Amino acid sequence: MTALTEILPTPALIEPLADAGLAERVQHAIDQKTKPLGSLGRIEALALQIATIVGQEQPWLQAPQLVVFAADHGLARRGVSAYPPEVTAQMVLNFLAGGAAVSVLARQHGLALTVVDCGVAHDFAPQHGLHVAKVDGCEHGTADASVAPAMTRSQALQALRQGARLLAALPGNALLLGEMGIGNTSAAALLMSRLCGEPLASCIGRGAGVDDAGLARKRTVLQQALDTHAGALQPLDALAALGGLEIATMTGAVLQAAAERRVIVVDGFITTAAVAVAAALAPAVLQRCVFAHASAESGHARWLAHLGVRPLLDLGLRLGEGSGAALAWPLLESACRLLSEMASFESAGVSQRVD
Amino acid sequence: MTALTEILPTPALIEPLADAGLAERVQHAIDQKTKPLGSLGRIEALALQIATIVGQEQPWLQAPQLVVFAADHGLARRGVSAYPPEVTAQMVLNFLAGGAAVSVLARQHGLALTVVDCGVAHDFAPQHGLHVAKVDGCEHGTADASVAPAMTRSQALQALRQGARLLAALPGNALLLGEMGIGNTSAAALLMSRLCGEPLASCIGRGAGVDDAGLARKRTVLQQALDTHAGALQPLDALAALGGLEIATMTGAVLQAAAERRVIVVDGFITTAAVAVAAALAPAVLQRCVFAHASAESGHARWLAHLGVRPLLDLGLRLGEGSGAALAWPLLESACRLLSEMASFESAGVSQRVD
Repeated sequence: MTALTEILPTPALIEPLADAGLAERVQHAIDQKTKPLGSLGRIEALALQIATIVGQEQPWLQAPQLVVFAADHGLARRGVSAYPPEVTAQMVLNFLAGGAAVSVLARQHGLALTVVDCGVAHDFAPQHGLHVAKVDGCEHGTADASVAPAMTRSQALQALRQGARLLAALPGNALLLGEMGIGNTSAAALLMSRLCGEPLASCIGRGAGVDDAGLARKRTVLQQALDTHAGALQPLDALAALGGLEIATMTGAVLQAAAERRVIVVDGFITTAAVAVAAALAPAVLQRCVFAHASAESGHARWLAHLGVRPLLDLGLRLGEGSGAALAWPLLESACRLLSEMASFESAGVSQRVD
Repeated sequence: MTALTEILPTPALIEPLADAGLAERVQHAIDQKTKPLGSLGRIEALALQIATIVGQEQPWLQAPQLVVFAADHGLARRGVSAYPPEVTAQMVLNFLAGGAAVSVLARQHGLALTVVDCGVAHDFAPQHGLHVAKVDGCEHGTADASVAPAMTRSQALQALRQGARLLAALPGNALLLGEMGIGNTSAAALLMSRLCGEPLASCIGRGAGVDDAGLARKRTVLQQALDTHAGALQPLDALAALGGLEIATMTGAVLQAAAERRVIVVDGFITTAAVAVAAALAPAVLQRCVFAHASAESGHARWLAHLGVRPLLDLGLRLGEGSGAALAWPLLESACRLLSEMASFESAGVSQRVD
């Protein structure tokens, strides 16, 4: 297995967060706030998690970065998506022009939006907000995983390293994950099946909306891909053979963010794939992750259960782009503000329980 | 039954919202946005609901008002709460000083915060953000509903009218409901049992956190109250006999907000009581309500099911104050922004589905 040091720009370990003293002080502070014990429910757990990640009793989320990793997929030529492959490039331009859902939500919440071309089948002119991180030999997307590895192992490694380096150059202490890539629910479903040992049928959904015939086609093509790469069992082998360039690049960014103890806000099914690969390499990644929502994409809820995590929202979203991460973002800000700004029983002169 | 015209300051009806043309145009606009059909899930339904309430294709939420209705309860002297009654007044001061959860969240989201003294057992000095709306003869709280009506019918009517008048004087097109009152989960549970015909056991929870002995005591006292007022079956009779001054005042505000077609954001168990009474008087009130969250207070989920509504969040909150309404608020803003700011397939030059 590849060591993290081969991926991350500076030697780093992703250690379990285990400052019991800090956790106890934060929990005590929460319990002294003017509210019944535990009455802010999961917002209290979220505040404790954020404090634990960044290692501060009164954490403040600074310069949050929403990064949309985009790439094309060889599998898309096999008709596994309801939309034609050129939509990936068109949506990249839409993100940058400010007209996509994630653009609107990033503006609303003051999230810096960066779009990363990890291998879109288009050569974009340089422009503000676009970061080009194509991979040698697959500049316009992956190979068709049903007949060949999506990437070679060295291409996957290059994508991982580029993702880590990109993230290291971004400011702030919070990363929100987004993605775009026609066909990428297929790549994510393949990774889920391989990493979780789940039958393909539990991992496949309608993605952006394939009809019944498309779903049947998707199932056949993806089973072919799994059979072709039956030996790709280790996380990085699976990522290279079955994954996508945006998933690999995102995985590198997640590892780097985890090493730096940034708060990582996970969106839907495809970003969960990147986090799952990262967690397979370094399990303590999961402690740094806030799962924003349960996607309507079939398979997502099951994958979250496999990871042993609970998402914040359940709104039937299945758009991707980072839209769910952005919608959940104010809850993270609320958790921090409540921790910093709420009065205690003592400071406010409020009486405690009578028992 | 009392007519709405006896409550609302100007003669008004709360009509069903039934502009099919508007709904169709808004749905068409949503479906033309650059995203797979329906992929923003419940945010799409929320956008359509807000547009329908305010009657605009691109609604904008203006000057949102978070109003915390506060009062004391005769029942609280019977030991139905984990906290002593003086906490109601102490928390009112905490809201105004900015140290309560709802104060923090209102600041975060730019919500104007008004606290209404509907019958707190304290005489507050006049101050910014405090509105005094006490009711003649129960200036310091309701009577003990286990032995006498909490309010007379005319006191309840005065509270309803004061709530309606108060709301009519506030700007904006959105009302977020909050409340404070030691003992008010008891009043709400009584109203739930009476209005829904549910056995008391399905309506009673631990409120701010009573222990097992407190819960048993609460059950006995509340059953006494239901038996004492077995004849109070009509909504306003039930409200007067079993309710609270903050619930009655809030009910008046809800009716007025509904008549003005404001968006009403409902918080937890107690605010649901006010909305349920309002909806019993004018069923079309519910069309104007966005239910922010499912409270951890036992009974809330069941009450929402009775009303046929689904809340946005499920975060195990049970604080009240309007904290859940404030936490959900950014989702309403997102829904409006997405409707106004997202590009269409045509305007962004993005290809449509292939089938």
